[in-house]
Amino acid sequence: MSKELTSRAVDYSQWYNDLVIKGELADYSAVRGCMVIKPYGYALWENMRDQLDKMFKATGHVNAYFPLFVPKSLFEAEEKNAEGFAKECAVVTHYRLKNDPNNKGKLMVDPEAKLEEELVIRPTSEAIIWNTYKDWIQSYRDLPILVNQWANVVRWEMRTRLFLRTAEFLWQEGHTAHATQEEAVEETKKMLDVYSEFVEEYMAVPVIKGVKTENERFAGAVDTYCIEALMQDGKALQAGTSHFLGQNFAKAFNVQFLNKENKQEYVWATSWGVSTRLIGALIMAHSDDQGLILPPRIAPLQVVIVPIYKGEESKAVIDAKANAIMDELKAMGIRVKYDNNDNARPGWKFAEYELKGVPVRIAMGLRDIENNVVELARRDTKEKASVSTQGLGAYVKSLLEDMQQNIFNRALNFRNENIREANTWEEFVSILDNNAGFVSAHWDGTGETEEKIKEMTKATIRCIPLHNKQEEGKCILTGNPSAQRVLFARAY
Amino acid sequence: MSKELTSRAVDYSQWYNDLVIKGELADYSAVRGCMVIKPYGYALWENMRDQLDKMFKATGHVNAYFPLFVPKSLFEAEEKNAEGFAKECAVVTHYRLKNDPNNKGKLMVDPEAKLEEELVIRPTSEAIIWNTYKDWIQSYRDLPILVNQWANVVRWEMRTRLFLRTAEFLWQEGHTAHATQEEAVEETKKMLDVYSEFVEEYMAVPVIKGVKTENERFAGAVDTYCIEALMQDGKALQAGTSHFLGQNFAKAFNVQFLNKENKQEYVWATSWGVSTRLIGALIMAHSDDQGLILPPRIAPLQVVIVPIYKGEESKAVIDAKANAIMDELKAMGIRVKYDNNDNARPGWKFAEYELKGVPVRIAMGLRDIENNVVELARRDTKEKASVSTQGLGAYVKSLLEDMQQNIFNRALNFRNENIREANTWEEFVSILDNNAGFVSAHWDGTGETEEKIKEMTKATIRCIPLHNKQEEGKCILTGNPSAQRVLFARAY
Repeated sequence: MSKELTSRAVDYSQWYNDLVIKGELADYSAVRGCMVIKPYGYALWENMRDQLDKMFKATGHVNAYFPLFVPKSLFEAEEKNAEGFAKECAVVTHYRLKNDPNNKGKLMVDPEAKLEEELVIRPTSEAIIWNTYKDWIQSYRDLPILVNQWANVVRWEMRTRLFLRTAEFLWQEGHTAHATQEEAVEETKKMLDVYSEFVEEYMAVPVIKGVKTENERFAGAVDTYCIEALMQDGKALQAGTSHFLGQNFAKAFNVQFLNKENKQEYVWATSWGVSTRLIGALIMAHSDDQGLILPPRIAPLQVVIVPIYKGEESKAVIDAKANAIMDELKAMGIRVKYDNNDNARPGWKFAEYELKGVPVRIAMGLRDIENNVVELARRDTKEKASVSTQGLGAYVKSLLEDMQQNIFNRALNFRNENIREANTWEEFVSILDNNAGFVSAHWDGTGETEEKIKEMTKATIRCIPLHNKQEEGKCILTGNPSAQRVLFARAY
Repeated sequence: MSKELTSRAVDYSQWYNDLVIKGELADYSAVRGCMVIKPYGYALWENMRDQLDKMFKATGHVNAYFPLFVPKSLFEAEEKNAEGFAKECAVVTHYRLKNDPNNKGKLMVDPEAKLEEELVIRPTSEAIIWNTYKDWIQSYRDLPILVNQWANVVRWEMRTRLFLRTAEFLWQEGHTAHATQEEAVEETKKMLDVYSEFVEEYMAVPVIKGVKTENERFAGAVDTYCIEALMQDGKALQAGTSHFLGQNFAKAFNVQFLNKENKQEYVWATSWGVSTRLIGALIMAHSDDQGLILPPRIAPLQVVIVPIYKGEESKAVIDAKANAIMDELKAMGIRVKYDNNDNARPGWKFAEYELKGVPVRIAMGLRDIENNVVELARRDTKEKASVSTQGLGAYVKSLLEDMQQNIFNRALNFRNENIREANTWEEFVSILDNNAGFVSAHWDGTGETEEKIKEMTKATIRCIPLHNKQEEGKCILTGNPSAQRVLFARAY
């Protein structure tokens, strides 16, 4: 298989698919819309998951696990939530296969093993979890409940794309229960901050925090907060959401508690989630035509050492030096690999690790060793330098931090350059068609206008930014009065 | 809810259920046969998972993720495997719900959204994975593939029990591909060793390594290796299995590779798994009528500090000292909690942490502080001692290791005392009915005899121990010649 990628300029969408597949992050599977996450992609996910998990625990959350299945009668209990997800539910109707009498060696669904009640495969777990919380909560002493779940969920999407939109995906979903509205709102915002910190500081992707309009809200939420990122093609990507659910689920599942005043009250709820979709965001925010660019903090491999040798003798010398460098880097907590595989030439390896987005490549030959240097190439800028082996560990450690910052700054500059104000409909359309990115514009606040703009331009309101400047203006479509600008974009 | 447990002597099975539920490890859910793993149970699973994952990676394995769904046509490709699991498959037949026209506010399965091909929810992933490996493997250079997956699986069991047998459970499944039979057999045994090391050294549960008879083999395997543990009620529990799959799956999915001699050959396979069932084994191997006994190495909480005070003033003094001890223990990597919750009395807390199986309890009052001591109680023996606060961290660290060893030794002695030889049918039946445990007896090697013994006594052959002594004898049932004893037991 050729390792060459389609360039972004030629076909951005094909470039993305090439990169996911040739970079060995994921692949299509035999199941429509489902992907296989390959070891390299999964290692990336593990690093992201472990960091997020640490941050959830540092903010007082614990993990638990709830069933994959939601009985239909529970699924439909919160009507808006049910309505929002009904069209994309995989449904289990039978619990047994049997031999097909007309087809030797084949199986068929056993019609006698039909479930009395169908089971929906969780597209999200509010229903099954709030049905459980009913048993956990009697008094204010049982609150808050701060639970997170790492799980797979299924949403039967018609158009799927690796990582960005798959029928099954991996995610975490936090589900918290509180005694007061204030506390629940605070939790919603706190988790948005955790997401924003994670995505910016670990994934090096700058985000805008905001709140969704009613049209774009999570089905069943009172308010949906979000972080929005910008991809290199100028399209936005929702990178995480945190929902204030009010008492909607508590009412649907009759979850009440005795408050401090000895009165029964419905419990206040939040839920929040990020998924393997983030990997799609990571790829599209940073990578180039040669391959992935991974931020060092979450890269599965941070440094690769490639020997340049002719003959066994020089190989032995280089092996010894490379292993010493490996030990030095490992002792500093750096994830490093020495690739002295004989079956591939250095040039092939260079291209391979560039494709895989390994942040730092160290190449070394006999002459380098004699001169006490190595050739060091950084993936983000492709700069190469001859670096002394004296203090190499500290040098690399600091370089990795610089690269993390550089990758973030680059994405931040791009994002900031691609937020444009539009004050007329013509400006609005022209920006979308010529530059894409975020368009900051006045909107009259109605769902109808929002819907019309979407139909006409495919742009949606990504969010109303938090702490948004209040400013008199006129809606770009209707001319009706508006009190603030909102952020529009075409989005993934 | 009363925290009292049914005693083991009165009803072992009820004791187990009480312990799982009142110990807050898991609970029943609204879905038949599925459980909710509560935060305390999940924290235990996380510790087990993280240690196993470390051991898998140390032996060269990487993680990946494959789809939850197996299309029926793939599921049935390896006939024995399909036959073995067909009767317990949850099947997805539809991908959409719609409003029920006859039932306002309710949903129904949309008959127009029927899948062309049904999807089985993975009961195990050989089929979907080997169908994928076909694309990953061309030559011997692509081998070995050493992949593991952490996932949920579904087996629609008729009789379920918390942790021990649930319709959905969490597990890991390793799926490796090799160029030679020798290498695959070696991998199968290596992973059995990893399991045995983990279960003995971390869970403190002694196991017997062996190989299954044909009747008890994994559906689709050439050989199934297992580790068998003994519970306190004398029943055995299969704690992990490692399968040598031969070329069965490679043939079913046509996975061939070009070997070093430039010939096409079918790939050799293994698979191996342990699940949340291990938590059931852990509970039943160690716990007592007062609650859980958890081995320190995997206990979510290793030490709890309980203050004994009257009045705010003495509380402040104790808080200060307790926090200093907390810091000392945490610095040594000990998982410790200070429970100074005002709403519960010390006696209630003592019972609660006993129930939860926290290995070490430290109680301290004002007089203890004046004397520079604390009261330290160990959960395994219930011994209490007054211990100097000087060097407390080191004392506790070493005590935790002692307890780990003591818990293992206790279980080992019990296990060894409960392996008995039977040389006649009468002896065999008498041991099973009076003492239970493992019965070491001669068997004529036929599946029919094995089946008859099972029907008559409910005892199955747990395994043929590895490195089994070869010894002439006569089958306890048929009197036919036998070359070795095998281990029988009634089992979970």
